[in-house]
Amino acid sequence: MLSQKTKSAFSKIVGSERFHDDLATLSSHSYDSYSTGGRADAVVFPKSTVEISKLLEIANQEAVPVTTRGAGTNLSGGSVPINGGLVLCLTQMNRILKIAPKDRYAVAQPGVVNEELQIALGKNGFFFPPDPSSYTVSTIGGNIAENAGGPRCLKYGVTSDYVLGLEAVLASGKIVRLGSANVKDVTGYRPAGIFCGSEGTLGIITEATLKIIPIPKAKRTAMLVYQNLNDTAQTVADIIGEGILPAAMELMDNGIINLIEDYMNIGLPRTAEGVLLIDLDGMPEMVQKEMELVERIGWQNKAIQISLAKNSQECDELWKGRRAVYGLLNKVSPTVLVEDATVPVSKVPDMIRGCRKIAEEFRLKISIVGHAGDGNLHPSINTDARDKEKMQRVDLAVRKIFSLALDLGGCLSGEHGIGLGKKAFLPMALGDDTIDFLKMLKRSVDPLNILNPGKFV
Amino acid sequence: MLSQKTKSAFSKIVGSERFHDDLATLSSHSYDSYSTGGRADAVVFPKSTVEISKLLEIANQEAVPVTTRGAGTNLSGGSVPINGGLVLCLTQMNRILKIAPKDRYAVAQPGVVNEELQIALGKNGFFFPPDPSSYTVSTIGGNIAENAGGPRCLKYGVTSDYVLGLEAVLASGKIVRLGSANVKDVTGYRPAGIFCGSEGTLGIITEATLKIIPIPKAKRTAMLVYQNLNDTAQTVADIIGEGILPAAMELMDNGIINLIEDYMNIGLPRTAEGVLLIDLDGMPEMVQKEMELVERIGWQNKAIQISLAKNSQECDELWKGRRAVYGLLNKVSPTVLVEDATVPVSKVPDMIRGCRKIAEEFRLKISIVGHAGDGNLHPSINTDARDKEKMQRVDLAVRKIFSLALDLGGCLSGEHGIGLGKKAFLPMALGDDTIDFLKMLKRSVDPLNILNPGKFV
Repeated sequence: MLSQKTKSAFSKIVGSERFHDDLATLSSHSYDSYSTGGRADAVVFPKSTVEISKLLEIANQEAVPVTTRGAGTNLSGGSVPINGGLVLCLTQMNRILKIAPKDRYAVAQPGVVNEELQIALGKNGFFFPPDPSSYTVSTIGGNIAENAGGPRCLKYGVTSDYVLGLEAVLASGKIVRLGSANVKDVTGYRPAGIFCGSEGTLGIITEATLKIIPIPKAKRTAMLVYQNLNDTAQTVADIIGEGILPAAMELMDNGIINLIEDYMNIGLPRTAEGVLLIDLDGMPEMVQKEMELVERIGWQNKAIQISLAKNSQECDELWKGRRAVYGLLNKVSPTVLVEDATVPVSKVPDMIRGCRKIAEEFRLKISIVGHAGDGNLHPSINTDARDKEKMQRVDLAVRKIFSLALDLGGCLSGEHGIGLGKKAFLPMALGDDTIDFLKMLKRSVDPLNILNPGKFV
Repeated sequence: MLSQKTKSAFSKIVGSERFHDDLATLSSHSYDSYSTGGRADAVVFPKSTVEISKLLEIANQEAVPVTTRGAGTNLSGGSVPINGGLVLCLTQMNRILKIAPKDRYAVAQPGVVNEELQIALGKNGFFFPPDPSSYTVSTIGGNIAENAGGPRCLKYGVTSDYVLGLEAVLASGKIVRLGSANVKDVTGYRPAGIFCGSEGTLGIITEATLKIIPIPKAKRTAMLVYQNLNDTAQTVADIIGEGILPAAMELMDNGIINLIEDYMNIGLPRTAEGVLLIDLDGMPEMVQKEMELVERIGWQNKAIQISLAKNSQECDELWKGRRAVYGLLNKVSPTVLVEDATVPVSKVPDMIRGCRKIAEEFRLKISIVGHAGDGNLHPSINTDARDKEKMQRVDLAVRKIFSLALDLGGCLSGEHGIGLGKKAFLPMALGDDTIDFLKMLKRSVDPLNILNPGKFV
C-alpha cells in the first residue's frame, strides 16, 4: 500500500488529471493478456522523460514497486503489477519524434502504437519490420520491452535487430542514452540490446531510435496445403535450402485447419495435416521468379492444393483464415493459452508430433499455428480457467511442452517473453549460474528491486 | 608483478608447455595493431572452458589483471595488457564444434580464425557475414569482443547480429551460457548482445553459436569513378533510395586514389574526388537487374568512368586497389592511424569535407576510405610516432574528427572499438550517467576489476 504522502508526491509530478487511484483505473491497469493477478495502488500517465525521472527518484527512495505498461497486450504477464505499487502507463508518450528516410531511422516515444508508426513510415516509403499480432494496439515501448516478433521476423529479424538507440530512466531516476542513430556503433557495451526483452526490469524506455527499411516494391502470397506433416516440413526446408527467404512462412496444423473450417468454411480439406502460408517480397521480377520456385517445390513435396495470389486483394483473402485464428480459438473455450516454445527449424515436425502426444496424454485440445521458417511455434491450448482439475492437466502439459522444446535444442519463448507465465521454467532453460548472472546485472542498476519485481529476475 | 606462487598455480592448470613467462613470449603478447604499451607478466594458452574457469578463480582471488587476446589484430588497443598480469591467449581453442546448415547455425571456439570458419562453412554452401579486413588472421572471439564489422556489413549487419548464443566465463570463474541456437529467443535479457563489443571486460567468451546464411548464387562488382564528391555521395543515396542494398559499397577519396596510383598505377584519374566500389549479390537475374540500375544511376550522377566486372576474376581485379590500401598507407609513413568515426549516411559528404579542413588546419595527410553505405568512414592519418610535435597535431586532429562525427549525429567507432584509442573521448560521446551505467554493469560481474582493467569501463 502506498501512503497518502507518497501518492501526493506522485500526483504533484504529473498533475492530478494524470494521477489515478480510483478502483476502475486501478483494475483496468492491473492485468494484461495473460494474467489478471495484479493490484496497482496508483496509476500515472507521464508525458515526459523528466516526469518519469522524478517519479522513479521518489519510488526508489520509498522502495515502491514500479510496473510499466503500454497497451497491456503481452501474453506472459510481464506488465502485471503483482506486488502492487505504481503503474507507469506510457500511452500518453505517443509522439513520433523524427523520421529520417535518407538515414533510415525513426525516433519514437514508447507509447506510439506499432501500426501508427507503420502508417507514418509508409508515407515515406518505409516500414518497421516487427509485426506482432497485436500491432494494431501494442506500443513500441512494449514491443521493445518484450522483444516482440511476428510473422515478418523470419526474413527481417526481431525487435532487437531494429533498436539502434534508447533513452531510458534507471531506478535511481538517472537518465541514460544508449546507442545512437548509426547502424554501426561499437561505443562500449550495447545495453540497448539487453533492454530488448528486459520486461521493464532494468529501466523505463522513454525514447527509441529505430532502424527502418524501404517497403519492398512487390509482395505476393501463396498457400500450400499438405496431406502429410513431413511433406509440409520438407517444403519449409527446401524453400530455405533454395536460398529463398520468405517475408513470412506460417504453418497451421490439422487442429487449426479444422477450427478455421468450423467457423469460416474457406474450403480447406479437413484431413490435411498442414497448411503453409508464404509471403514473398522484393523486386517484382524476383518475387515472380521465387514464387515459381515455391510452387515447384510445393508440388515436388506432394502438396494437394496450391493457391497463388495475383494481387494484394487475393493475398488478403489467403491470409483471412490465419488472421482469424486467435479470435476463433477464443470462441471454442473460455480460456486459451498461447505458448511460444521455439525450436530449430529442422525440429519442427518432431515438436508438432510431440505436442500431439502431449495433448493425448493429458486429454487436452492443443492446436498449433506458428512461424515455421524460424521454428517459432504457438501450441495453443483450449481450456477453462475455472476448471481446476483441467488446469492442473494444462500445467503439466505446458511443462512437458517446454521440456520437449529444450530437449530439441529450442527455447522457452520466441517472442512472448518470460513474465509470470514462464518464470517457473527458467531454471530448466538457463541453469543457476546464468540466472545469477542476470540477477547481478539487474541488482547493479536496481538494488532495491523496485522495477517490475516478482518477474523473471 | 605476479608472485612465483601465483605463476605456479596458473602453470599447474594449463601445464608447463602452455604457460610462458619468458621475455620473448611476454613481449609478443603485449601489443596489438594499435599499441605496444603492454607488459604481460605471464601468458597462458588454455584449451578448455574448465581451464579458463580455474585460471579466473585464482586470478580473482589474487586480484590479478586478466587480458584476453586472439590474433591481436585489433585497432584500438583493446587486447593490450596495460596493467600487466595474465594474458589469456585463446588461439589454441580453435575448433569448429558444429555446423548445422539446416538450422542455419555454427558453433565455434573463440580461437577459430574467421577465414577458417568461412572455408568450413563454404563447403556447406554457407557463410558468416562479418568480414573485417583482418579476417585471414583475426579470430571469432576477437571479432565478437570487438563487435567487428567489414564491407559486407552494409547489407548483412555486424557481428552482434550473428551471435545467437555464447558460453562465457565470468571473473569469478563461473560459467554462464547465454542465448541458444534459436534466432528467436527472448528468455530473459540478451546478454549475448552486451558481450559483443565488451572488449574482454565482462567475461571470457569460450564458445559462440553463430547465425550463418547461404552463399548467394551470384556476385558482381562495379567500380564508379567521379570527378566530384557530391556526385559520389548522391550515387550512394540514390542506390539505397532505389531499394538496392549492395553487399558492399566502398568509397575512396582523392587521397586514396592518388595513393593507389602512386604504387599500383591501375588507371584511376588523379583528379577524381571519389571512387565507389560496389558489390551486388543474390539470385543471378536479380544481380543482373540491379547492376543495370546501378550503372544507370552512376551515369545520371555524372560518373566519369564505370567498370562492370563480368566474372569473379574481374571482380577481384576491381577490388585490387581497395584491398591494398592499408598496406600502401603503411608504405607512405612509419605510423598510420586508421580511425573509424561513423556518421549517418546523409552526412558522409560533410564528414569528408570536414576531415579535409582538419587536415589543412593541422598540416596532416588524412585520406579517407570507408564503407559509404553505412557511413562508417576510415580517416587515415599518415604520421610518425617518433615525431612528438607532429603527434601532438595528430592528437588534436583526431579529437576534432571525433567531435565533428558526434556533431553530425555519428559515433566514435563503427567497428574498431574503444579500447585505449578512444577511451579519452568516451565522455564526449556518452555523458557521465551513461558511463556510470556501463560501470555499474561491469562492476556487478567483476567487482575487483580484474578483466581487462584500464580500458573503456
